[in-house]
Amino acid sequence: MHDTYSPDRRTLLKGAAAGAMLLGPAAALARPGDREAIRKAAEAGYDGSVKRIQDWIRLPSIAAENLNMEEGAEYMMRLARDAGFQQVEKVPTDGHPGVFATLDAGAKRWMGIYFMYDVKQFDPKEWSSPPLEARIVDKQGFGKAIVGRGSVNQKGPEGAFLAALHAFRAAGRKLPVNLVLIAEGEEEIGSPHFPQIVRRPNVLAALKKCEGVIIPTGWQDRDGSVSVNLGAKGVVELELVASGEKWGRGPVKDIHSSQKAIVESPAWRLVAALQSLVSPDGNTPMIDGFFEKVRPLSARERQLIAANAAASSEADLKRSLGVKAFIGDEPWVKTLERLAAQPTVNIEGLVSGYTGPGGKTILPARAVAKIDMRLVPNMTKDDTVAKLRAHLDRRGFRDVEVNVSGGYDPTETAEDARIIRAQQAVYTRSGVKHTLYPRLAASWPGFVFTSAPVSLPAGQFGLGHGSGAHAPDEYFIVESSNPKVQGLVGATMSFVDFLYEMATIS
Amino acid sequence: MHDTYSPDRRTLLKGAAAGAMLLGPAAALARPGDREAIRKAAEAGYDGSVKRIQDWIRLPSIAAENLNMEEGAEYMMRLARDAGFQQVEKVPTDGHPGVFATLDAGAKRWMGIYFMYDVKQFDPKEWSSPPLEARIVDKQGFGKAIVGRGSVNQKGPEGAFLAALHAFRAAGRKLPVNLVLIAEGEEEIGSPHFPQIVRRPNVLAALKKCEGVIIPTGWQDRDGSVSVNLGAKGVVELELVASGEKWGRGPVKDIHSSQKAIVESPAWRLVAALQSLVSPDGNTPMIDGFFEKVRPLSARERQLIAANAAASSEADLKRSLGVKAFIGDEPWVKTLERLAAQPTVNIEGLVSGYTGPGGKTILPARAVAKIDMRLVPNMTKDDTVAKLRAHLDRRGFRDVEVNVSGGYDPTETAEDARIIRAQQAVYTRSGVKHTLYPRLAASWPGFVFTSAPVSLPAGQFGLGHGSGAHAPDEYFIVESSNPKVQGLVGATMSFVDFLYEMATIS
Repeated sequence: MHDTYSPDRRTLLKGAAAGAMLLGPAAALARPGDREAIRKAAEAGYDGSVKRIQDWIRLPSIAAENLNMEEGAEYMMRLARDAGFQQVEKVPTDGHPGVFATLDAGAKRWMGIYFMYDVKQFDPKEWSSPPLEARIVDKQGFGKAIVGRGSVNQKGPEGAFLAALHAFRAAGRKLPVNLVLIAEGEEEIGSPHFPQIVRRPNVLAALKKCEGVIIPTGWQDRDGSVSVNLGAKGVVELELVASGEKWGRGPVKDIHSSQKAIVESPAWRLVAALQSLVSPDGNTPMIDGFFEKVRPLSARERQLIAANAAASSEADLKRSLGVKAFIGDEPWVKTLERLAAQPTVNIEGLVSGYTGPGGKTILPARAVAKIDMRLVPNMTKDDTVAKLRAHLDRRGFRDVEVNVSGGYDPTETAEDARIIRAQQAVYTRSGVKHTLYPRLAASWPGFVFTSAPVSLPAGQFGLGHGSGAHAPDEYFIVESSNPKVQGLVGATMSFVDFLYEMATIS
Repeated sequence: MHDTYSPDRRTLLKGAAAGAMLLGPAAALARPGDREAIRKAAEAGYDGSVKRIQDWIRLPSIAAENLNMEEGAEYMMRLARDAGFQQVEKVPTDGHPGVFATLDAGAKRWMGIYFMYDVKQFDPKEWSSPPLEARIVDKQGFGKAIVGRGSVNQKGPEGAFLAALHAFRAAGRKLPVNLVLIAEGEEEIGSPHFPQIVRRPNVLAALKKCEGVIIPTGWQDRDGSVSVNLGAKGVVELELVASGEKWGRGPVKDIHSSQKAIVESPAWRLVAALQSLVSPDGNTPMIDGFFEKVRPLSARERQLIAANAAASSEADLKRSLGVKAFIGDEPWVKTLERLAAQPTVNIEGLVSGYTGPGGKTILPARAVAKIDMRLVPNMTKDDTVAKLRAHLDRRGFRDVEVNVSGGYDPTETAEDARIIRAQQAVYTRSGVKHTLYPRLAASWPGFVFTSAPVSLPAGQFGLGHGSGAHAPDEYFIVESSNPKVQGLVGATMSFVDFLYEMATIS
């Protein structure tokens, strides 16, 4: 996912609304013997499934670096064909291509599956195991893991989903639902062209038949718990740039700092522009009209958050984040409401002039703040960017560039959608503790599905565990030593169960 | 010099108060034939003088990296002994050692010479000629140059001074003045322990006998002009650091940016602290009491600046700096007054969080601003740092660290000091255009000499040319193809003339 989810993050979600502890499988949904046969096939296919993920990791597609993008799309197409999709096509965009595929099993219902075939950049020097070798490494407390770039984000969980399709076929069983696969290669740069893919007439027509869309995930916590998310904040990533070149004042190249006496400073200009965006404590966005479209939390959302607060620990979250205090030192439930409801303006990074050890007596010609803004319903990316631009212009910062690199609107899915209830049903029947959560504070491009013209429910689903998205030593567990956490076969079976559930849920 | 002087900088100084165009040497000051004999010796010693500078460049001492500091001090001692200093000793400090040497020629007057044996850090990848090989390279429009780290800053000009001492000896002539040499190895980190060196009783006693102190320079402009500086601003370099660790709020390690909704941001805290230091346009320091000790320009200083303004071109300075406008769009003379009189708070660099291409959705645990402040008389480094600390504390920024890495007070030398008049006399007699300039906007540690307990006139002197201090491809001309600019022999003779002048000037 573009937006890293740390398992630590989910300490605040665990424990709430624990599922009924029925440890039996979802066998009732399949014909007698079907699930057992598919599980045997998944077990028999384990080596092949591991190898499929490993081989995929060895072909990294990175949109930001224009690395292996055509190759990645072709590879994605081959993976789809091998998994039984009958119709597979590449979808050109103004950026890098996507993939559209359908698998018509003659079932009654259709289900949409979202894949990303790209991965985040990496620096091999920071890894203890080479990021493209996808070695099997023992992760203490979890078991055997594939370590490599993309292993949890998102090739491992996607590979587990593909393994489910292979297992169905190997067991001679028909899929209980038909599938529409939509894959993109620009997830890690904020999905700038993904709307173009889903709006192609044939893709849109296929999606319109679906019950909803899920992205395969592997986010079980150490205690096995997962969350069922009803939405996520939107995000905008951008650079604010102050420069002598655009300003027409200050230097166009770095000059000696003694000239500060007579030459204006783009770095000071950036500081002033930044300071205008937030309250003095940095906690409340002050961009003109920023809150105009914000919809307050509903009573039901407050109820869900209260349930989360009751079942989770403020101390745990503080410990896992390494913070001693939350904003305002409010009660725990208020902090969780703020997490879900507060739109933000955050500084991801600052870069100007000399950045090495010690000092260097220069007056830099350029200063950059890397900013992300998190949006809640009914804010939109375009409206928020326009408000930021107008806010700066109104204060005389017309020359300060707003270079948007990616982002998308918030996403929401109704609690009664089949894909939400199916998730809950599978988790409950599998004895997995799960929490209904109104809105992730983080972001994913679900709005492409949940907003017009597609207008479908969308969410995440999957058992299994991995971590280190965007970080060194990213991993995905294939053989679990933790009885509460599923390995690759368990993750595969979670998708089998989910597809059966989607076929029959009322 | 710690503080790079670009020759471009001096476009604003050239042309003013051009010296009488007497092309003859300062022979009248020496006994008949002496100067000719010394010049012949300097010419005969040219190869050895070039090699002396090259060999020195090949041993870089860099205090910031603790590189070759003992070796550099030993080398400096050997250079002093070889040049005829009879008494040479290493001076320990709480940091890296300095060198103190005396050459008693039995003359009436004593002169102090300041050397730095350290050089600025460098990255060989950025150089077109290896920075430690000190190759001879042709510099278009100037002639043959030694290219290497330290070549102009300061080993080339210092080597030219040493060559003058060798030439006296080779010609069998006695020095017209006795010399006290004080060298340090921490100039490039702001001379933190240099006061310890000059305050040693034997060093101080020797300095007290001197007429003044000069550092050898080679700053002739393309048209041959130089400036005679009566002082320089002081400087403080420091890092302002906001961190979750010191604050007790915000994260102690970078966390996911979605947490901005509930976690405070050290980067926003730094922005707020920074914004409090200057006016909204970034041009006027707003640190409480910052201007309290500032002494306005005197009538004579205004007069000198007016002369500079009349003889220099605003358009030239704009062009060489790459700026279209100066602060306030004031008349040229006002701009030059501001350059000399305005104390500054400048951002040298900003560093926080993710600084690579594109974005990364993190909330950084730490944010750093690299700041320099330029001080005018009668501000002091210690008082200004104390005012900054108090200013931040008063606004609740007690946790924002002020980590001073170096700096020193402003320095001033009276216009009627012998070392100033001697400079003017030599330049005039050599037909070199020169300008009397009240105060460099840049800084050098002259205050160590001009303030108590040493309390001597101090300045820069030398003909010759080089550039690229602190930058790649730093060079010093050894064989000039420009008739207005001196090569190594000419630079050497400028010191010969200066020493004769110092011996006799009233």
